[in-house]
Amino acid sequence: MTEGTAQASTPTARILNGSAVAAAIRSELKPRVQAFAVRHGRPPSLHIVLAGDDPASHIYVRNKERAGTEAGITVTVHRLSSDVSAEAVRDLVVDLNRDVTCDGILVQSPLPGSIPKAAAQDIFDAIDPSKDVDGFHPTNVGLLVQGRARLAPCTPSGVIELLTREQIPISGLHAVVIGRSEIVGKPMALLLLERHATVTICHSRTRDLPAVAKQGDIVVAAVGRAGFVTREFIKPGAVVIDVGINRVDGREAAEAIFGAGSQRLADFEKKGSAICGDVDPSVAGIAGALTPVPGGVGPLTIAMLLKNTITAAEDRSSITG
Amino acid sequence: MTEGTAQASTPTARILNGSAVAAAIRSELKPRVQAFAVRHGRPPSLHIVLAGDDPASHIYVRNKERAGTEAGITVTVHRLSSDVSAEAVRDLVVDLNRDVTCDGILVQSPLPGSIPKAAAQDIFDAIDPSKDVDGFHPTNVGLLVQGRARLAPCTPSGVIELLTREQIPISGLHAVVIGRSEIVGKPMALLLLERHATVTICHSRTRDLPAVAKQGDIVVAAVGRAGFVTREFIKPGAVVIDVGINRVDGREAAEAIFGAGSQRLADFEKKGSAICGDVDPSVAGIAGALTPVPGGVGPLTIAMLLKNTITAAEDRSSITG
Repeated sequence: MTEGTAQASTPTARILNGSAVAAAIRSELKPRVQAFAVRHGRPPSLHIVLAGDDPASHIYVRNKERAGTEAGITVTVHRLSSDVSAEAVRDLVVDLNRDVTCDGILVQSPLPGSIPKAAAQDIFDAIDPSKDVDGFHPTNVGLLVQGRARLAPCTPSGVIELLTREQIPISGLHAVVIGRSEIVGKPMALLLLERHATVTICHSRTRDLPAVAKQGDIVVAAVGRAGFVTREFIKPGAVVIDVGINRVDGREAAEAIFGAGSQRLADFEKKGSAICGDVDPSVAGIAGALTPVPGGVGPLTIAMLLKNTITAAEDRSSITG
Repeated sequence: MTEGTAQASTPTARILNGSAVAAAIRSELKPRVQAFAVRHGRPPSLHIVLAGDDPASHIYVRNKERAGTEAGITVTVHRLSSDVSAEAVRDLVVDLNRDVTCDGILVQSPLPGSIPKAAAQDIFDAIDPSKDVDGFHPTNVGLLVQGRARLAPCTPSGVIELLTREQIPISGLHAVVIGRSEIVGKPMALLLLERHATVTICHSRTRDLPAVAKQGDIVVAAVGRAGFVTREFIKPGAVVIDVGINRVDGREAAEAIFGAGSQRLADFEKKGSAICGDVDPSVAGIAGALTPVPGGVGPLTIAMLLKNTITAAEDRSSITG
């Protein structure tokens, strides 16, 4: 067992309540949703394409559907079987592009394995950038780089909202982003840079990753490995943002992460599995502030999806009248 | 006078000959140009829009025109007066988009001051991404982020070519990019990241910039300030890429940068001005390798513009037949 374990220290970090910030964002969206509905005779609408039977995807989509409906958005889920053809998915996207009552389109990743990678890319690229509420279309990614995004990826823009609303300064600080995915790492780095952080992007090939991460006044962990970021990665007092949502099934792994005798290990024993971030719980003993998992970045991602949907609806209606 | 001056040490850095690498790139383009010309009955064509009378722009365009012509590309320069309307420039771009014999479009920056910033942005955005040989269109920038660019910005992709051909490893090294412009800093960081460097992006708000830069195994200076990067920024043996092209007019500044008694100061005395990079010449005494200015990154930028033009021509012809 390394030093990065739960019993090594008492939590001191301020816990950043992502759920509360997400609730605040969602409540701010309500008047926008209502104003849109009054003006256009219908609420903003989000269409989600869900192909196949990946259990995690079904949970994510259900959460998005519920949150959207609660916000007053019309959410339509298009459920397609796991043997659907790439052509059929693409045709659906093209239809949704043409549908003037559709404001936002989200094709849930991953698409079924039967759809080749290039065809999957074609499907994502086919989404009208003005309806691309995930912010993954190349045109929206390019606008993000150029500091003029209207629809930015939900997770990193949720992190920026959290930092801003929690009055954590960004400008002039050194932010370290661990992970370089298209959907989190890279856009996160660009958004932090836009807010005048000095930004370092690390990944699997980074040499002496703990030492590099330890320079961060802000550390964003987006690697997808449970408990990967331990105390030795973190400068005392740093702000740590945990983007990971990892399922832990093994008891040994759970004890290594949560610590013997911890409440979270007891919860694990009851359920037989647990959700764990990329950050080891012991980091709470050294960080200045920390997002929990669950209840941190996850709810923010969904809140920003709703915000993007309303923004897309407003922007499109300002063009089409 | 700071320690970062020419007389402080003897040059030891290997000088990276950008001109020679650019010549090699250009010679590799010849068979592609010829094959295209044979197949299509005309050479690839580049159209440059030059509005106004900025002297530096006129020099840049002349250099691009000459290099293109030497490579066998048809280069057409559209010279517009400094009081041209934004609409007229935009109309020209739209015409060039439609012109099937036009393969590449470059609108030289900056556009005249009489064209408002938003209108200038509209002009650049109007360029068909498949003809965008500068690689500045949001769609091309987004594809770059996603690691699937066909047309990448010329200066940073030229730097990658230089590093590759000079057999300087990138993967796993720490690269520090000083400057975060759309045309150099950001795409440079993304291209280095794609080649598996750990990347730090610094800028004017970075705290203790010399200490951050000194971590770099590779340092790319793109700040636009003559001699800004001094010895204290550089780890002994680091590879230093100087993207700056700055005009030095004052004798005092020239002596501070080039050093009393230096050949370059003597040249300055003769001409009354000199071109100087962002890197202080004294860095040659500590760096492991260094690009000179002139003769470093500048020729590579032009070579990559020609390469993009041919790539655009080939890609479009593979679609249109």
